[in-house]
Amino acid sequence: MKLTTYTDYGLRTLMFMACLSPGARSSVVEISNYYDISRNHMVKVVVQLVNLGYLNSVRGRNGGITLAKAPKDIRIGQVIRGLENNLNGVDCESPGCKLVPVCRLTRALKTGMEAFLTAMDEFTLADLVSDNAEQIIAILKIDNR
Amino acid sequence: MKLTTYTDYGLRTLMFMACLSPGARSSVVEISNYYDISRNHMVKVVVQLVNLGYLNSVRGRNGGITLAKAPKDIRIGQVIRGLENNLNGVDCESPGCKLVPVCRLTRALKTGMEAFLTAMDEFTLADLVSDNAEQIIAILKIDNR
Repeated sequence: MKLTTYTDYGLRTLMFMACLSPGARSSVVEISNYYDISRNHMVKVVVQLVNLGYLNSVRGRNGGITLAKAPKDIRIGQVIRGLENNLNGVDCESPGCKLVPVCRLTRALKTGMEAFLTAMDEFTLADLVSDNAEQIIAILKIDNR
Repeated sequence: MKLTTYTDYGLRTLMFMACLSPGARSSVVEISNYYDISRNHMVKVVVQLVNLGYLNSVRGRNGGITLAKAPKDIRIGQVIRGLENNLNGVDCESPGCKLVPVCRLTRALKTGMEAFLTAMDEFTLADLVSDNAEQIIAILKIDNR
């Protein structure tokens, strides 16, 4: 049971942005390179983070992306709600489950998933880079402007 | 974010068994046919449910599987702990994440996952077939002995 790679990359992106100096710009290319992950995947994730209001996209030659909110105001449960495509806990469709009309498991999982998200809302982006931002910068070799 | 198909099938198997008359036997072939899912997958799931003590395996010509505990004594969180291969919430290995040594996200996810499992422990197998066993029997067309 794990987050999709999409959500994982989204959280890594926000953690990266939160380690930069306030207001500093970055880009999909830069973040993909630092983490050594697919640029194609990253583009979609970043577009969604812009749509959700966590990132600002700045156009032009000196463009890029910036964090749109203070890290302390970004709740991790909320980010996961915005990025995950399935928060039901199971996929009843493939292969299709005959029990769908009478299933009590899906109800129980809804309760469990809400408990997970509520627990994750106790963490903000600031918590994820509170005492380790310097180490993240060193590990990723971030050229912090 | 969802359970693996493996865990999903395990829970469906237990729900099926809990709908039978107490002590009634079934088999991998029968359950695969009722749910219309792969027998190969089902074999592995059932072996693991036997290993975990949720099912008894009975050898011989009239052999098969039986439920090893009363449904009210089977906690769904415990079943999930036994069947899921990853309860970390993310896969830090593929592709390998450079932040592993200093990551605070994995710590936060551990808390979230524990909240999920604790919430799921509030449900027993009996809760999943409490008022809908007749409907499940009808939908799956179970020949209830």
